[in-house]
Amino acid sequence: MHGLIGLDWGTSSLRAYRFDGAGRIAETRARPWGIRQLPEGGFDAALADVTAGWPLLPRLACGMVGSRGGWLEVPYLDLPAELAHLVDALDRLRAADGMDVHLVPGLRDPHGPDVMRGEETQLAGALALRPALAAASSFVLPGTHSKWAVVRDGAVTGFRTLMTGELYALLQRHSILGGDATATRDDAAFARGVATARDSGAAGALGRLFTARALMLDGVLAPGAVPDYLSGLLIGEEFRIALADGLARRDVPLQLIGDPALCERYRRAAALFDIDLPSPLQDAAAHGLWRLAVQAGVAVTAPEETRAC
Amino acid sequence: MHGLIGLDWGTSSLRAYRFDGAGRIAETRARPWGIRQLPEGGFDAALADVTAGWPLLPRLACGMVGSRGGWLEVPYLDLPAELAHLVDALDRLRAADGMDVHLVPGLRDPHGPDVMRGEETQLAGALALRPALAAASSFVLPGTHSKWAVVRDGAVTGFRTLMTGELYALLQRHSILGGDATATRDDAAFARGVATARDSGAAGALGRLFTARALMLDGVLAPGAVPDYLSGLLIGEEFRIALADGLARRDVPLQLIGDPALCERYRRAAALFDIDLPSPLQDAAAHGLWRLAVQAGVAVTAPEETRAC
Repeated sequence: MHGLIGLDWGTSSLRAYRFDGAGRIAETRARPWGIRQLPEGGFDAALADVTAGWPLLPRLACGMVGSRGGWLEVPYLDLPAELAHLVDALDRLRAADGMDVHLVPGLRDPHGPDVMRGEETQLAGALALRPALAAASSFVLPGTHSKWAVVRDGAVTGFRTLMTGELYALLQRHSILGGDATATRDDAAFARGVATARDSGAAGALGRLFTARALMLDGVLAPGAVPDYLSGLLIGEEFRIALADGLARRDVPLQLIGDPALCERYRRAAALFDIDLPSPLQDAAAHGLWRLAVQAGVAVTAPEETRAC
Repeated sequence: MHGLIGLDWGTSSLRAYRFDGAGRIAETRARPWGIRQLPEGGFDAALADVTAGWPLLPRLACGMVGSRGGWLEVPYLDLPAELAHLVDALDRLRAADGMDVHLVPGLRDPHGPDVMRGEETQLAGALALRPALAAASSFVLPGTHSKWAVVRDGAVTGFRTLMTGELYALLQRHSILGGDATATRDDAAFARGVATARDSGAAGALGRLFTARALMLDGVLAPGAVPDYLSGLLIGEEFRIALADGLARRDVPLQLIGDPALCERYRRAAALFDIDLPSPLQDAAAHGLWRLAVQAGVAVTAPEETRAC
């Protein structure tokens, strides 16, 4: 049987891909079984369920499943890390079904310090999809913990975690800035937030959070528009920080990876920084899992003649 | 009867001062009755209880009691605002006991925008205690919402709210950076946090929050030391922002106002910025209430001969 089972296994969710021998995704399944919320029976039970009925194929997993507190801790690779070298650092464990699960290591930037697990596989997938970006590019992967990464000559040379999504949720749910008003989409409020961060100079947007309250007291922001203002302020601050610290450069392509709806916010913010952001790459983790599995000889690829069928 | 009753009435607490005719504090009482958590009977009941047994004296109140949602909304004074002119903008209401309560207005910085209520009275008190600071000084009032204020020629010319205390609590209680480990005092971790913010350049410390986790994974920070590291990072960021935006200047005196234990953290942070911070001023709100009441003719001052008794 040709193919691979790829597992993108994070803190709060598990996504499984069944690839055919040519690397095409034959089926995708998602479960809410992040490593902190596993079903009865733990990792083995989760794996058995998410792959139920699928042929017995080699498995490659990325994400927090390889962290301390995961299934098996796989040491981080320190930067600079050539994405092609990730395969040399794969680890594996024997699952209860008697077959191996191979694991992708995370990356560590000693200059932060900072760490990632899972995003390195998305970056590998992004370079598989857009080989021209390998020479010199920056990537932004929005999320609970957004990552900005710099790639030079196929290697990740630096990255930074920005806790934008988590901070936004905290401020909305628990802070004085979160209201009980119903949030209404307000593109002007979002743009105002982005511009406030952009124009905050070297002091930065952390010192501008309270403007959300002052603008509401002024009657400039409707209570329901505060969430979009805060979203703009925090996403705009990502761009300001990235430009200030060289994580993004105006003379190097910047590429989004991730969920289209969230990425659309980043594209709107980018426009206010006069940065043109192309459409996001999707399924980057799946592409990365396949690419790494092929490089490592883990995937069972179909011969050329079969692939043509 | 000579004297005054001063009320420092905020969101979460009420503090009442009984002054004698010479402005000395004869008694202080505190109640957990902020404007959002009043006792049965509301503002009138709170006032009656906190002043029970005290002589009938004029009352002057500052803080959120004068906000929308307070007892009476007193409009903000826009900057630049001479602290001596606050008295021209006092408002008053008639309490259920048939006597007036005078209210101090808050300040609004249109360039933020930003707002304060209560701190303007502390600043007035600080200048009463340290008249030499009226010419040119900066003030820092640490707290849930820290305020940094610039004073020139007796007027507040700019200020900024930094949500340090609230962010610290949110990150500790609700974020991935908050552990269940018991916090242990760790001065080295605090200093490391301050230095990380200080050295974060124009990008700033918001992009360094995640280092708290990476340093813990590295084994550099014990889980119990993360709170002090975060405290240092956020307080250090206040100084970095204040210096970047001219809220503090190295050629102008900087003065703390507030709780000694919290202020001690700011003094340690200041030292790492090569700034010498003198001991904090205390009871600044009380001094400000007395000073403003005298200027407004609200306080009943004792004649000179009586005052000497």
